[in-house]
Amino acid sequence: MPVYTAPARDARFIINEVLDLASYNNLPGFEMATPDVVDAVIGEGGKFCAEVLAPLNRIGDTQGCTRHDDGSVTTPEGFKQAFDQFREAGWGTLSQPEEFGGQGMPHVLGFALEEFISSANQSFGMYPGLTNGAVSAIIAQGSQEQKEKYLPKMISNEWTGTMNLTEPQCGTDLGMIRTRAVPNDDGSYAITGTKIFISAGEHDMAENIIHLVLAKTPGAPDSTKGISLFIVPKFLVEEDGSLGERNPVSCGSIEHKMGIHGNATCVLNYDGAKGWLVGEENKGLKAMFIMMNAARLGVGVQGLSQAEVAYQNAVAYALNRRQGRALTGPADPQAQADPIFVHPDVRRMLMDAKAFTEGMRALCLWGALLVDLTHKAQTEQEREEADLLIGLLTPVIKGYGTDKGYEVATNMQQVFGGHGYIEEWGMSQFVRDARIAQIYEGTNGVQAMDLCGRKLAHKGGAAIQAFFKLAADDIARAKDVAGLEEMAAILEKAVGQQQAATMWFMQNAMQNPNHLGAGAHHYMHLMGIVTLGLMWLRMASAAKAQLTETGEDKAFYEAKIVTARYFMDRYLPDAGALRRKIESGSDSMMTLSEEAFATAA
Amino acid sequence: MPVYTAPARDARFIINEVLDLASYNNLPGFEMATPDVVDAVIGEGGKFCAEVLAPLNRIGDTQGCTRHDDGSVTTPEGFKQAFDQFREAGWGTLSQPEEFGGQGMPHVLGFALEEFISSANQSFGMYPGLTNGAVSAIIAQGSQEQKEKYLPKMISNEWTGTMNLTEPQCGTDLGMIRTRAVPNDDGSYAITGTKIFISAGEHDMAENIIHLVLAKTPGAPDSTKGISLFIVPKFLVEEDGSLGERNPVSCGSIEHKMGIHGNATCVLNYDGAKGWLVGEENKGLKAMFIMMNAARLGVGVQGLSQAEVAYQNAVAYALNRRQGRALTGPADPQAQADPIFVHPDVRRMLMDAKAFTEGMRALCLWGALLVDLTHKAQTEQEREEADLLIGLLTPVIKGYGTDKGYEVATNMQQVFGGHGYIEEWGMSQFVRDARIAQIYEGTNGVQAMDLCGRKLAHKGGAAIQAFFKLAADDIARAKDVAGLEEMAAILEKAVGQQQAATMWFMQNAMQNPNHLGAGAHHYMHLMGIVTLGLMWLRMASAAKAQLTETGEDKAFYEAKIVTARYFMDRYLPDAGALRRKIESGSDSMMTLSEEAFATAA
Repeated sequence: MPVYTAPARDARFIINEVLDLASYNNLPGFEMATPDVVDAVIGEGGKFCAEVLAPLNRIGDTQGCTRHDDGSVTTPEGFKQAFDQFREAGWGTLSQPEEFGGQGMPHVLGFALEEFISSANQSFGMYPGLTNGAVSAIIAQGSQEQKEKYLPKMISNEWTGTMNLTEPQCGTDLGMIRTRAVPNDDGSYAITGTKIFISAGEHDMAENIIHLVLAKTPGAPDSTKGISLFIVPKFLVEEDGSLGERNPVSCGSIEHKMGIHGNATCVLNYDGAKGWLVGEENKGLKAMFIMMNAARLGVGVQGLSQAEVAYQNAVAYALNRRQGRALTGPADPQAQADPIFVHPDVRRMLMDAKAFTEGMRALCLWGALLVDLTHKAQTEQEREEADLLIGLLTPVIKGYGTDKGYEVATNMQQVFGGHGYIEEWGMSQFVRDARIAQIYEGTNGVQAMDLCGRKLAHKGGAAIQAFFKLAADDIARAKDVAGLEEMAAILEKAVGQQQAATMWFMQNAMQNPNHLGAGAHHYMHLMGIVTLGLMWLRMASAAKAQLTETGEDKAFYEAKIVTARYFMDRYLPDAGALRRKIESGSDSMMTLSEEAFATAA
Repeated sequence: MPVYTAPARDARFIINEVLDLASYNNLPGFEMATPDVVDAVIGEGGKFCAEVLAPLNRIGDTQGCTRHDDGSVTTPEGFKQAFDQFREAGWGTLSQPEEFGGQGMPHVLGFALEEFISSANQSFGMYPGLTNGAVSAIIAQGSQEQKEKYLPKMISNEWTGTMNLTEPQCGTDLGMIRTRAVPNDDGSYAITGTKIFISAGEHDMAENIIHLVLAKTPGAPDSTKGISLFIVPKFLVEEDGSLGERNPVSCGSIEHKMGIHGNATCVLNYDGAKGWLVGEENKGLKAMFIMMNAARLGVGVQGLSQAEVAYQNAVAYALNRRQGRALTGPADPQAQADPIFVHPDVRRMLMDAKAFTEGMRALCLWGALLVDLTHKAQTEQEREEADLLIGLLTPVIKGYGTDKGYEVATNMQQVFGGHGYIEEWGMSQFVRDARIAQIYEGTNGVQAMDLCGRKLAHKGGAAIQAFFKLAADDIARAKDVAGLEEMAAILEKAVGQQQAATMWFMQNAMQNPNHLGAGAHHYMHLMGIVTLGLMWLRMASAAKAQLTETGEDKAFYEAKIVTARYFMDRYLPDAGALRRKIESGSDSMMTLSEEAFATAA
């Protein structure tokens, strides 16, 4: 049985000492998030995840979801009861607006909890996770009437939500959508079409499901400029809020997937189902992107979450499993063999995981703070800068975070040797579950193009310049701290590599946009390690300060500084290599014709 | 339904034009391998794999193997019939000695076929594959009587073989083996103990199974110096070769694994089973390593094989699936969208796969030639050099080849977007099957330590010096060929990085062996890309020569040169980064104590 403990100590360190959340207590909602409240939420939330959700994770994997002949879907044993507990405790309401029944706390707290939920049980976490995505779209684009009708029950998790984008012929290219929305006389629309890959699309955990559906109205342009967004409830909602008749939207089948078996991935058939337009006609893509951006950050957190839980299990195994002797002589001469923890190659994998998970946690929580600041910061300029930064960081958090998260989960499985390949140990599930995060909410190739093709150039490069400025400031500060100078210098060099790569894009992408496309993936990874390097410098600085000021919890802070150094030693050398790959351009990549890829017998 | 075509054209190019097999026709067995015979074997063998084995691959994955209450095991539907066809066609006999019914052909041919078998159906290929491992141990260490008794039926695949090393408490550290071998009066031994993870350990495809089992005789030293190797047949073999009574070795259970479901991974319980000593008492480890080295090369081929079949499917999908438009303007303006093949990030993944699979194929076939030359080269010096080189290359082929093979399979799944995550498309299976190759026959961490801790220092560094000499010669030759100078220069620089890393180990590992352990993984990858770079330089040289001499098949040879350039552009920049990681040493990796890895709530 896999183990899991929510890394609450580390989350508190980041929130209180790195981000210094208390310093924002002049902003709305933040005043509630005092260190005591942070402690309680993180502590109790973590306990709930470890005690209630984690024990259901393997059950979810082995049982999966079951579709019945009538189209209803049963979730794995225990999921419904756990969701009842989740709902009763109000965990889903944490960072939602008070106006609709939420607690109005900063997203930083909601994100910290989201990691724990997903580590404990990614499939389970997707039910409330998708609901949050749908909620954010309605908040941003829905009418006041729609908000009042749907949000309270969604925020309370009495109802859940879904996002319906994909169709068999169309994934990334939403211009190809065929689902039709024909106006009814009463102001609603009749929605007809087939949507696939709908996570949490049908289940038995809530009394209603609010589907957000992209569709085309008659005569809409045949491109992404002709897409509209609709609310399509599973059960129609009466004026008084009670549930009315069943809408003709049904689950045609559920997919057999590599992982996340506990989440029902549905084919949904809309057969003239009643839907209501959200926002303006033909402006659905904009509403969809609000939903997607929130979801993409959540998927980045999933990359972290599977790496974290896999790491915890690998540590436990490495300390327990005995094979061979330390290279420097027996560590435990009385025993027949040493724990494999003594072997440098095992330690390499564990340190690599530790450096990633702690750095990524800092990045995700910083990202969540930026999300808050886009709405709540005091000045327009601060809100604008937060918006620019989180826009830039979102594809990095999603793309780099899930690529590396999958790699770490795989390495943690590797620590188990042959046992890692056996399903009962649970390591295979972490890898299989982590895999989806690289794919959904826009594949990581799409993230790379969002970063390089859209975000870099946005507003004349304002976002990336703000990022470089911020990095330069942090580095300059760290250079003045005894013991951090070398690390700051290593990071400075890596930032320099990213700046050079950025410049190369500027000078070459206009002439041939394939040069940009050919380097986008590498650039996303380059920015990923630079950004985590920045997080590590901040964490090392915060740890130094604590060591000097309080002297308490010495081992924790010293470990931060060692791990920061490890990150500089073993992650950042890739910056130069990634830059050189980018600068090799697209010639050798794009020259070959289709025929050259055919296999000849 | 996934597609598969054996890449026979590419294998012929490597065998005939890169390795120039015909030039070895003065060596025993090689005289039979004329270009005509190579053509026929590769062509017909490939056809068999594509037509008979590939269609059973998904069936193997979904059905798996079934253990019955009596301990018997049923393989997936069609496996037994396919193995009958395999046996009748004599595919298992290709590179086996004529003395025992083999065809005596070079291993190069056997290896080429092994790739095709494993691409078509890795689980199936393990049944004859493990048999080959057992055969090589008996050839090397068995008595003449044992050879005559067992080899003909094993080589003909009437019987199969297994390797029994692992026990619950011992994997890598074979000194901890507990299985006992107590002498009987008749010269045999009574074997008692439990072995786990025994691939092809029990099945219904052959009339007998010859288990090769590591065990300890009474009073044997409590270390790897006390291990002996035994032949333990499932059914005892009478004097006249007929099958006698059932030996008390039985399958206690079969494992639920992440992949290779079509192969029965067994717990085997030995309950006083009759076994016969192979070679000398307490010298089992040596015999085991003969078996293991052959098996490790075979596992490296598996890394290639899953990358190759996944690549073929990703190419087919990328040419067929339409989403979005080329960055340089619509490639197919008449259609609603372009094939995703036009997108640079998709092309990046395909080119990365092409550069790996073709380069790795060249490396595996060169490795197979070296195996032949260790026995068959004319002079002692040539045999010695081949032995040194293949010893050095074996952990690289296994370790780098399977790490990168898994990465490529994962990337090819990524090309499919969401569909890649759905089991019916088959891409998930390639990833799950590829995963085991990084683990078994010695995890890749063990390979890295074999390379750096053993092979580098072996005979005063003779092997690595021979490798550098050979690389320098190839580079010098290529520098004189118009159009190859730049590629040769890039590779030369990467070789320089490897030389510097080697020197760093020499200067630092004595003082602290952890410095070696901490860099071993990175060194294995560094040598992996340098070695593939060398293969690409050879292939580009051979292609240049063909373009000049014959002018035939122009597109094929031109693609080789472009892909070689891609390899230099996108793989070799990592050489410098890997060197820097190695040179950062073990301090930041090994400093933290156990406590620093504990998760605090």
